[in-house]
Amino acid sequence: MSKPLILVSNDDGITSRGIRKLVELMTQLGEVLVVAPDSPQSGMGHAITVGDTLRLTPSKIFEDISVEAYECSGTPADCIKLAKHHVLKDRKADLVVSGINHGSNSSISVLYSGTMSAAIEGAIEGTPAIGYSLCDYSPQGDLSHVDEYVLKIASETLEKGIPKGVALNVNIPPIQNQKIQGIKICRQANAWWEEDFEQRIDPYGRKYFWMVGNLVNHDKGQDNDEWAIAQNYVSVVPCQFDLTGHHAISIINDDWDI
Amino acid sequence: MSKPLILVSNDDGITSRGIRKLVELMTQLGEVLVVAPDSPQSGMGHAITVGDTLRLTPSKIFEDISVEAYECSGTPADCIKLAKHHVLKDRKADLVVSGINHGSNSSISVLYSGTMSAAIEGAIEGTPAIGYSLCDYSPQGDLSHVDEYVLKIASETLEKGIPKGVALNVNIPPIQNQKIQGIKICRQANAWWEEDFEQRIDPYGRKYFWMVGNLVNHDKGQDNDEWAIAQNYVSVVPCQFDLTGHHAISIINDDWDI
Repeated sequence: MSKPLILVSNDDGITSRGIRKLVELMTQLGEVLVVAPDSPQSGMGHAITVGDTLRLTPSKIFEDISVEAYECSGTPADCIKLAKHHVLKDRKADLVVSGINHGSNSSISVLYSGTMSAAIEGAIEGTPAIGYSLCDYSPQGDLSHVDEYVLKIASETLEKGIPKGVALNVNIPPIQNQKIQGIKICRQANAWWEEDFEQRIDPYGRKYFWMVGNLVNHDKGQDNDEWAIAQNYVSVVPCQFDLTGHHAISIINDDWDI
Repeated sequence: MSKPLILVSNDDGITSRGIRKLVELMTQLGEVLVVAPDSPQSGMGHAITVGDTLRLTPSKIFEDISVEAYECSGTPADCIKLAKHHVLKDRKADLVVSGINHGSNSSISVLYSGTMSAAIEGAIEGTPAIGYSLCDYSPQGDLSHVDEYVLKIASETLEKGIPKGVALNVNIPPIQNQKIQGIKICRQANAWWEEDFEQRIDPYGRKYFWMVGNLVNHDKGQDNDEWAIAQNYVSVVPCQFDLTGHHAISIINDDWDI
C-alpha cells in the first residue's frame, strides 16, 4: 500500500519552529510536501491574494529530513490553492495539516486564524484537514509534549476520516507540571476578544495604535474548547465552512415583512 | 425618539462608489458614522492587524452630506474594532453596515470577503449587522436599482432585529432588463472556486502567478443564494460566527478511538 500524501502549511512562516515539528511528525505517517508562507501571516483570517502577484519558490529548509518544500509569498489559503495546482498537480493530498501555530486558535480566534484558513481551504477542496495550535504565544514555546496528540489525531483522521464539510481545529494546552488529560471533541466556546488600542505618538507627532486585548470566555458549558483547554485536555473542534445560521432563516422569514 | 446610530464600513476603501451609495442611503434611516479602509482590502477575509501599527485619520470625504468619517490603515475588521473604541467610545451603534461591495460575496466567497468580515465583527460585538454586495465586479457597476432593497433590509433589521449570533450577507443581482423579483432569505450555496494560476515571467526572468478562477455551483437546491441571484432575487444569508459543525461531534466521537 502506498504511503499517504500529506500537505503541510502554516501561518507563522516556513522558518517557524512549529512547522518543523509538524513536518517531522508527519514523516512518521506518510510522504510529506510543504508549501508555506515565506513570512509570518498571523491574524490573516481567510485572506487570499487578489489583485497582486504570487511567488512560489523551492526551499531547502527541510532538505536535512528529505522533505520537498516550497515557500510562497501569499497567505496560508493561497499556499493550499497554489499547492493544488503547481506542486501536487495530478496527485491529490490525503491529508492537509497546518501549524503548529505558536498561540491559541480556540473559540472565536478561529475566525482570525491563518492556521485554520489553510485547513479550511483543504476541506473546501475535499481533503481531510487539521489545524494545530499550541496555546502558548511565545515563538519559543515548549513543544516537547505534543507528539502523541498530534500523531493520534492525524492518524485517526487518515484511518477513519472526518465528516465532509468540516476541518478540525486542534488546540494543545501549554506544557505544565501535570500530564495532558486526553483529547476532547468540542464545540467552539462563546468567547470573544475584548480589545483595547494602545495609543502612541510617532516621531513625527502623529497618533498611531497597537491592538491589544484579552479573550473573555462567556461560556458556562463544559463541552467547549475553552473549558477543555482549561482542564488540560487537547480540544478538537470540527469547523464548517457553510456559515449559514440555518435556525435564523425561519425566524427572519417569520418576523420580517418581505 | 432619537435617530438610530449607523456605523458604515467596507472593503473596497473609503473612496469607492459603493460606500458612498450606502452612506447616502443610510442617512435616510439614521445618524451615520463612517470608518473605512484607506485602500482596497478585497479578499482580506477576516484578517486583523496584529504585530503592526494602525492609523485612524478624520476624512472630509462625506462632508458634502454632513457625515463624519474616518479612514483607517487596517482591514475591515480592524475598522469595526477601532470604531468601537476610538470613534463611538461610550455610544453603541444600532446597526453596522458594510459595502456596497463591487462584486459578489455569495456562497463560499463569504469566507474570503472583507465586506462580510466587517459585518461579522459587528455581530460579534452584539450589534445587528449587514454586508451588502453587488454581483458586478466592475468598480463602475450600475447601482441605480439597489436603493429599495438596501433600505428595506436595513429598516427591517432596525425595526425587527435579527437573531443573535448572525450577520446578514446580502447579494444584489446586477442590473438587467427585468425588475428584481424580491428578497429571499437563503442558505449559503454549496459552490466553490475552481482556481487557476496564470503563470508569467517577470522582467528579471523569474516566474510569478496571478490567481484567476470561476465559481462553480454544485448545489441543486432552490433555497440557496446562488439560485436566488440567478432568478434575479436579492439573496440574504444569515451567517454565523460559531463555526462548529455540531453534527460532526457525535460522528467523530463514535468513529474515533480516543
